[in-house]
Amino acid sequence: MTYTHSITVPLPYAEAVERTRAALADQGFGILTEIDIAATFETKLGTEAAEAVGDYVILGACNPGLASKALAAEPELGALLPCNVVVRASGSDQALVQALDPQTMVKLSQSDAVREVADDADSRLRAALSALSEGATADA
Amino acid sequence: MTYTHSITVPLPYAEAVERTRAALADQGFGILTEIDIAATFETKLGTEAAEAVGDYVILGACNPGLASKALAAEPELGALLPCNVVVRASGSDQALVQALDPQTMVKLSQSDAVREVADDADSRLRAALSALSEGATADA
Repeated sequence: MTYTHSITVPLPYAEAVERTRAALADQGFGILTEIDIAATFETKLGTEAAEAVGDYVILGACNPGLASKALAAEPELGALLPCNVVVRASGSDQALVQALDPQTMVKLSQSDAVREVADDADSRLRAALSALSEGATADA
Repeated sequence: MTYTHSITVPLPYAEAVERTRAALADQGFGILTEIDIAATFETKLGTEAAEAVGDYVILGACNPGLASKALAAEPELGALLPCNVVVRASGSDQALVQALDPQTMVKLSQSDAVREVADDADSRLRAALSALSEGATADA
């Protein structure tokens, strides 16, 4: 069982982050939040914790139209927003991109409207990962 | 079925947000992200969408020590972090505070270490909501 859609791209971390951002934008997702985990751990826990986690960012992606529909149907759904996309280094020349599977929302909600929004978000996220994967491979 | 721990506090929205922030800090949660949904909808979708959702913030709460343990056990778990706490207006003089139930992580993960972290986070979030509820009621 998994709760993410995951791909490996043959790109250094920083470039993978930029490409992911662009691929999400192409699918109508803005990045509302961004957490640099290594920097956060460095500040709060020290260097050892930062080095253990390595390069790792959580991008909070949001398609405002979909979010609006979802919140109209189920106001508390904000507890599951935005849709997180993790980018993390996997060696020096490749990175993992792992998007939260919007179907996890469907598992947690009973609303038909939420199901429709999740399906739409899911298609867009898969398209973003697919574009990212193809672009990365073509350039590799 | 629900995926949040939810309380209603007899406080205007802005005060509920401040009290929630303080109650989370008392339990070791920093706020790493903050999304003002009405402001975001106003910018991206216009006034009607902003007014429909009303005062609504998503606070991304994170206890760095717990997050570090969780990511060591299951690196992709960042897709489910931080732990969101929604504060939203419910009339002019009360607000809803709805924290994502960390047990949702346990439902999605198979890791015993994640289960331990989720239990710890859950205790802390419940304590924060309990303190918030008591403080708010005592002053009301």
